[in-house]
Amino acid sequence: MHRISMLGTGLIGQFYTQTLHRHRSRDRVEMVYSRSADRAGTFAETWGIKRHTGDMAAAIADVSTDVVVIALPNHLHEPAVDLAAKAGKAVLCTKPLGRNADEARRMLQTVEQAGVFHGYLEDLCYTPKTLKALQAVQQGAVGKVLWARSREAHGGPHSDWFWNPEFAGGGAVIDLGCHCVEIARNFIGKQVRPVEVMCWGETQVHPIEAEDHAIGLVRYQNGAVGQFEVSWAFRGGMDLRDEVAGTDGTIWLNHWLRTGIDLFTAVGQDAYVSEKTDSASGWLFPVGDEPVALGFHEMFADMLDALDRGKPPMETFYDGYVVNAILDAAYASIRNRQWSPVALPDWRGESASLSTAVEREYDADHVVIKRERMPDGSERLILRHKASGQIVQRPA
Amino acid sequence: MHRISMLGTGLIGQFYTQTLHRHRSRDRVEMVYSRSADRAGTFAETWGIKRHTGDMAAAIADVSTDVVVIALPNHLHEPAVDLAAKAGKAVLCTKPLGRNADEARRMLQTVEQAGVFHGYLEDLCYTPKTLKALQAVQQGAVGKVLWARSREAHGGPHSDWFWNPEFAGGGAVIDLGCHCVEIARNFIGKQVRPVEVMCWGETQVHPIEAEDHAIGLVRYQNGAVGQFEVSWAFRGGMDLRDEVAGTDGTIWLNHWLRTGIDLFTAVGQDAYVSEKTDSASGWLFPVGDEPVALGFHEMFADMLDALDRGKPPMETFYDGYVVNAILDAAYASIRNRQWSPVALPDWRGESASLSTAVEREYDADHVVIKRERMPDGSERLILRHKASGQIVQRPA
Amino acid sequence: MHRISMLGTGLIGQFYTQTLHRHRSRDRVEMVYSRSADRAGTFAETWGIKRHTGDMAAAIADVSTDVVVIALPNHLHEPAVDLAAKAGKAVLCTKPLGRNADEARRMLQTVEQAGVFHGYLEDLCYTPKTLKALQAVQQGAVGKVLWARSREAHGGPHSDWFWNPEFAGGGAVIDLGCHCVEIARNFIGKQVRPVEVMCWGETQVHPIEAEDHAIGLVRYQNGAVGQFEVSWAFRGGMDLRDEVAGTDGTIWLNHWLRTGIDLFTAVGQDAYVSEKTDSASGWLFPVGDEPVALGFHEMFADMLDALDRGKPPMETFYDGYVVNAILDAAYASIRNRQWSPVALPDWRGESASLSTAVEREYDADHVVIKRERMPDGSERLILRHKASGQIVQRPA
Amino acid sequence: MHRISMLGTGLIGQFYTQTLHRHRSRDRVEMVYSRSADRAGTFAETWGIKRHTGDMAAAIADVSTDVVVIALPNHLHEPAVDLAAKAGKAVLCTKPLGRNADEARRMLQTVEQAGVFHGYLEDLCYTPKTLKALQAVQQGAVGKVLWARSREAHGGPHSDWFWNPEFAGGGAVIDLGCHCVEIARNFIGKQVRPVEVMCWGETQVHPIEAEDHAIGLVRYQNGAVGQFEVSWAFRGGMDLRDEVAGTDGTIWLNHWLRTGIDLFTAVGQDAYVSEKTDSASGWLFPVGDEPVALGFHEMFADMLDALDRGKPPMETFYDGYVVNAILDAAYASIRNRQWSPVALPDWRGESASLSTAVEREYDADHVVIKRERMPDGSERLILRHKASGQIVQRPA
Repeated sequence: MHRISMLGTGLIGQFYTQTLHRHRSRDRVEMVYSRSADRAGTFAETWGIKRHTGDMAAAIADVSTDVVVIALPNHLHEPAVDLAAKAGKAVLCTKPLGRNADEARRMLQTVEQAGVFHGYLEDLCYTPKTLKALQAVQQGAVGKVLWARSREAHGGPHSDWFWNPEFAGGGAVIDLGCHCVEIARNFIGKQVRPVEVMCWGETQVHPIEAEDHAIGLVRYQNGAVGQFEVSWAFRGGMDLRDEVAGTDGTIWLNHWLRTGIDLFTAVGQDAYVSEKTDSASGWLFPVGDEPVALGFHEMFADMLDALDRGKPPMETFYDGYVVNAILDAAYASIRNRQWSPVALPDWRGESASLSTAVEREYDADHVVIKRERMPDGSERLILRHKASGQIVQRPA
Repeated sequence: MHRISMLGTGLIGQFYTQTLHRHRSRDRVEMVYSRSADRAGTFAETWGIKRHTGDMAAAIADVSTDVVVIALPNHLHEPAVDLAAKAGKAVLCTKPLGRNADEARRMLQTVEQAGVFHGYLEDLCYTPKTLKALQAVQQGAVGKVLWARSREAHGGPHSDWFWNPEFAGGGAVIDLGCHCVEIARNFIGKQVRPVEVMCWGETQVHPIEAEDHAIGLVRYQNGAVGQFEVSWAFRGGMDLRDEVAGTDGTIWLNHWLRTGIDLFTAVGQDAYVSEKTDSASGWLFPVGDEPVALGFHEMFADMLDALDRGKPPMETFYDGYVVNAILDAAYASIRNRQWSPVALPDWRGESASLSTAVEREYDADHVVIKRERMPDGSERLILRHKASGQIVQRPA
Repeated sequence: MHRISMLGTGLIGQFYTQTLHRHRSRDRVEMVYSRSADRAGTFAETWGIKRHTGDMAAAIADVSTDVVVIALPNHLHEPAVDLAAKAGKAVLCTKPLGRNADEARRMLQTVEQAGVFHGYLEDLCYTPKTLKALQAVQQGAVGKVLWARSREAHGGPHSDWFWNPEFAGGGAVIDLGCHCVEIARNFIGKQVRPVEVMCWGETQVHPIEAEDHAIGLVRYQNGAVGQFEVSWAFRGGMDLRDEVAGTDGTIWLNHWLRTGIDLFTAVGQDAYVSEKTDSASGWLFPVGDEPVALGFHEMFADMLDALDRGKPPMETFYDGYVVNAILDAAYASIRNRQWSPVALPDWRGESASLSTAVEREYDADHVVIKRERMPDGSERLILRHKASGQIVQRPA
Repeated sequence: MHRISMLGTGLIGQFYTQTLHRHRSRDRVEMVYSRSADRAGTFAETWGIKRHTGDMAAAIADVSTDVVVIALPNHLHEPAVDLAAKAGKAVLCTKPLGRNADEARRMLQTVEQAGVFHGYLEDLCYTPKTLKALQAVQQGAVGKVLWARSREAHGGPHSDWFWNPEFAGGGAVIDLGCHCVEIARNFIGKQVRPVEVMCWGETQVHPIEAEDHAIGLVRYQNGAVGQFEVSWAFRGGMDLRDEVAGTDGTIWLNHWLRTGIDLFTAVGQDAYVSEKTDSASGWLFPVGDEPVALGFHEMFADMLDALDRGKPPMETFYDGYVVNAILDAAYASIRNRQWSPVALPDWRGESASLSTAVEREYDADHVVIKRERMPDGSERLILRHKASGQIVQRPA
């Protein structure tokens, strides 16, 4: 059983607290901090939290708690981590870990030097669907992963600081891309080194400095590619989908719209439908249990179970650091308009990786390129002569 | 915090225990009973349960537990309820409550006379999607409910006793229909009296006595109809879908196949994919977190929260009794081939209900039948003259 | 090449003419009739038709045409068929053939005695998806068909006469049920005799005499069941779906909503979206090519190709007659509240049918009831002892 | 009515002939050419074609035909166009027009100088769903288009020459990317100039020289981005999907898998299921009418209707040339690893384009960044101060 200091009372602080109290319910938030002492008080009352404060250091130092959860704007992660490490407490930090890789690496070093438990609260890697799909990939169901696309798009974030690059570290790439990059990295394999990034990003719609739409490709050392698609200008709700292509299979994941609730209402829904919903009547696509669908439930279960067992969780500060390094390369690529290397001075994975290619022999002289059934029912083979390289077709 | 005696170690006992230990994890199963003491021992080891026994009375009487969960074959529900009531413990019983309404009513009387807490473990009424949809209905999003279809179909149950009508009380109707009937009843309104049932049921495929396929209609006093479709002969996995039609809206729920994981595997999945999966390669449709998707999680949270608050849960033995009464009428209808009345000597809902009809006035003389946009973009009205009843069309 | 007299200028006459001129474009509508000569004129101008008239007999007798297409209200089918048969022309009649089986049988006798080509314009049996699915069924892909559900539901028809049971022959059952019944009959097999019908029908919403919502079950001689679900009170657009369950497979067809166009529009679509659309903004689900999706294209191709080859088309007046006989039984069942026999004095299919049951032997003493993979990865068999009937489970 | 010389008897020649004879059936293929005279003879017999030859020049010169359809490998397009232009015949050429922009531009000049009708057979721009979606975009349903993703992925082509870059002009980019690029260009607007391309392409799986997987971004002058995703290494069938994001709406199109036929077969389908299907049992997703779903039907209708009316069709050789220019830039980008300019010496669209940005004023001092409904039901606004640039949030 753990007692938690919750830092932050925004949407994410609410989701975290709701999840902690609802699911692995033997743990409790005992102290809550908000920059506004008033909001802290209201939040404490709403969620039945004993103590609250407008002083972050006090919240972290609270003697009754052993875990600090950081649900603050990005520019406040590092000071909070510093204090938590000093207090010798387990520290769980929301995504992205830092505003850039330097910041993230300092946070990693801080927790490692202090020897405290650290978890990176990358919820979308913990959705029940993602966990099930990762398990299938690990069992070999799709062969070697060649490409993983992760997409998060909606109408933009709900708090002012997100829109300010100084506080956030960037725009849609840092806000949403951190999820997509880590999802793809999980599918491709965390041991495989990300090598370089090509990214397009632009401010297409909003009156802001930061990019509100971006597409990026991350090339890994084994030839696999992770693709992230992020937008703060999407209409129609929140689009949360992943696709994985492997040599032997395919996975399509949908986490939000079109997942099994189709609601048509001619009279409309005045109330909240689900996160980032963009219409209140006609066909709506709510989600059953949002914290579960978003991965909060499994994430905290893994974090606290790991803490109980004295082992690292699935997502640590090291993962947050790698994500930041990839996003730094993405921002470099937006600026310099070419593939940009991922700088990872602290790389802990494999140093070389096998290629994704698969060779199927046909006979002594030929390898198979492909086999296909034609409309007349016949089967056809495309073969390549090993020596000459000549490509021929023949009936199967 | 509650300590639980779990009766039964089959698939349902496993799902229950997994859910109790995983989610609202401050409660624990402390004692487990199986008809086979060996199986009880293995189960206790697997799930970290302190005590186990092959003696049901001993399991119920265990002084360290305050809640009895009945996960036994249908014919053993009543004796288990009797013992639990005598022990003065809270009792949660799996579905269906009884093999028929008489049995269910006796169980209801037993727990009410003993004054113990009672919950009906009707998990599919607790899926996150169902709860979200019920909330929308209660907020008026779809107007008055006219029709609710609930469908559960798969290749048949996993234990021998289900296939024996003496133990089970019937076939697919009692096994799966109990879910469907209660889901529709929740959507239509528990206060609305079910009046009569028309049901077709047949043994189409399997070498058994009980029906393996059935379709039934339940007419409610307000004119709404609940439709249940059950099959033990369905191919392709487990089909769990609901549809609700209201005067102002529609709801489509899908709980299993096609809910956001599409997995193609050319090499195949040797392992368990998800409940009742019917193929191991090609396109598969697993579910992320089965106990959550099946409602176990929310069900036990509601049950134990209600117990903590001293209030009845959403589903009680009374609901189980009503379901059994409806299913009795369904079996009567299969036999007598006509609409059969639902016998409810103990009816606690409303005694009269308003009709579902809606009248929209057009002008002093006409009511609107409908309005439609035509392919040429024009709008057309169909009207009825109030006095003469004549039906006319005119441009809108 | 054929020259056509088109009778009727309503929505269906437009769809027919559009299809004839657009697709198998070597045929032309040369003459059009409407009860209103004005409408006939406008229609002729819109579609480039040479002649038009307000006199039905004149339209049928037109010497330049060899085919009569009847797109008139139901009560005018029989007089039109009489005149066309007398004129010795091929006659294609929209659905339902008659308002009841007597009327339909007279029309069948009329065309057969006159020896003219006759086609029943049952478009929904001709959708590309239905044809593809029928082909799969005929190739054995789903084994023996056990159950076929066909559903058509929308907000009600677009012309006044549909709402008047005297002209239409009934309400939603005759208007929409005719499609559903014939779709199921095609899947189950046209040679299999429909035996009896159980049907619920009610006027739930509209200020009319006819039923606006009905569910029916049609039992066939081989034990298969066809289920029809029709509604004029559905919200959300037009719901056109079929499901087929066989001993070895399953088919799900969707013809309208959710077929591959998802359009979110915050500004709205002022124009026509697709037939029976129920909202103009938010998420909309249009259909690419409506006449193709509704089967008009394939239907006329089959009809006119059959006429060219001197063979009967897939759907003839005999099929229309069988459908009417089934619907008569449905109306009888609504009234008498029990299974009602299908009266078919003129039955041309098989007189006996095999059952749907399948027996799989396990060993000399047992037959297999089912096999299932359990969550722990093991496989389990449920067996029945042939002599004793005892049911047991064992590892596979 | 037109008489056609068909050049080529491969899969595409079959689809073309089937479509021409089946749909706008007043036109006929009168002459067919194949490099193998034998195959030409077999093809002529199968499809009821009067004349056949192994001499391409003879097929084109045939005096009885007025239209030449080129369904040949890519390297034979130019010689065929030369001959057809010399013969003064209308010429319809399959995709891609050339192996590169120089080749395509020469073909364009050839037909324009000869003054013959020319059509670019880009079928996927003509699918009924694409046409419906383009119409919605043109009506303003989604506002200004910001991004259009088009994806075509399958297990690789069915004939040997595709796999040989000398004959094909490249790999998956030229084979499939030509579709995707032109689909996105239609959504973004053909008058908007494509400016530059960033593309990743690699040979991930097959023993070939050409790329078998590629992702590209095409930046247009108005800031919109077209994204193409192509693969010859996809498992699970053929993935044909498009997504369009606009300032006021979203479109998702699916043309193949998951479009309304779900077929589970335990016994398997020995026959052809649909193009590029990757499994023969379990859950299969056939398509109703392939030539219709692939756009062949509407494409030939547009081409031949345009020829009849003496107007250019929707897709001309000029479009084919623009597509080749974009793909040339894609190949350059794969090689030089940066954004590469699209060289269009012959540009006929607009020379400048407005941006996609949208400004919504809140009050004299602020513009709106976004508005969102929060879980507690409240609405929140994010505003930007025009003068200071400061971003604030406040209740709506």
